[in-house]
Amino acid sequence: VSEFEIHPQLLADCHRLGELSLSTLLLNRNAAVPWFILVPHAAQTELCDLAPRDRAALDTEIDAVCALLRREFPAVTKLNVAALGNQVAQLHVHVIGRHAGDPCWPKPVWGNLREERTWGGVDLERLAGAARAAAARGPRP
Amino acid sequence: VSEFEIHPQLLADCHRLGELSLSTLLLNRNAAVPWFILVPHAAQTELCDLAPRDRAALDTEIDAVCALLRREFPAVTKLNVAALGNQVAQLHVHVIGRHAGDPCWPKPVWGNLREERTWGGVDLERLAGAARAAAARGPRP
Repeated sequence: VSEFEIHPQLLADCHRLGELSLSTLLLNRNAAVPWFILVPHAAQTELCDLAPRDRAALDTEIDAVCALLRREFPAVTKLNVAALGNQVAQLHVHVIGRHAGDPCWPKPVWGNLREERTWGGVDLERLAGAARAAAARGPRP
Repeated sequence: VSEFEIHPQLLADCHRLGELSLSTLLLNRNAAVPWFILVPHAAQTELCDLAPRDRAALDTEIDAVCALLRREFPAVTKLNVAALGNQVAQLHVHVIGRHAGDPCWPKPVWGNLREERTWGGVDLERLAGAARAAAARGPRP
């Protein structure tokens, strides 16, 4: 049993979709945009401080979430990938699907997403299944 | 001579600091926070679409800019690394040094940086020198 704990603010803001090889995959509860968050199980708080092996694993997981976004949300035309951490220092990477018709295009989502929607249970099941498939698929060739 | 062209909006917003192995290194003209932008010389517009070799080179350059930020701006306590591209589609990665006393902490910089400062010539020379040193240093071991 891992002793790794996800920051309570992230858990409050997100659904927990599943476990990848390095990271827990979260989904922001606001369904106004498809907004995933990867939380690598690592003590470092900056990308550049990760062990090279973890950095490579995280890149692979970012790519897997990008692929998942494109498959599951055909409207998405732009991916936003960001590690900020000004409010929650625990290292976490946002991977967000955007398109010209979304509620805060072209602004970044942080602080600009006025619209609130909730994910349906069917969507959450489907995305958790996609996360399990991504975890099983492993790194890109 | 490379035919690669940096998007005019990025050039309008930034000083051009120098060339790394894959990317041109820019510095946002607003000196209110130390805000670097890497523009990899690649046709893809998403991180996940880069060739694996370019992705690895870009990671190395992100790390080099993070190290440069920590050396040159000791007040910095948090690094923000982000590839958004909603306004300028050309792939570019923001690497920004943040701390609790900066003008828009803890908000992300985009749309929240009300304060305007300009870089002095001495600072620009020093940072261009640091960029040259980073380019010469190459990938981390």
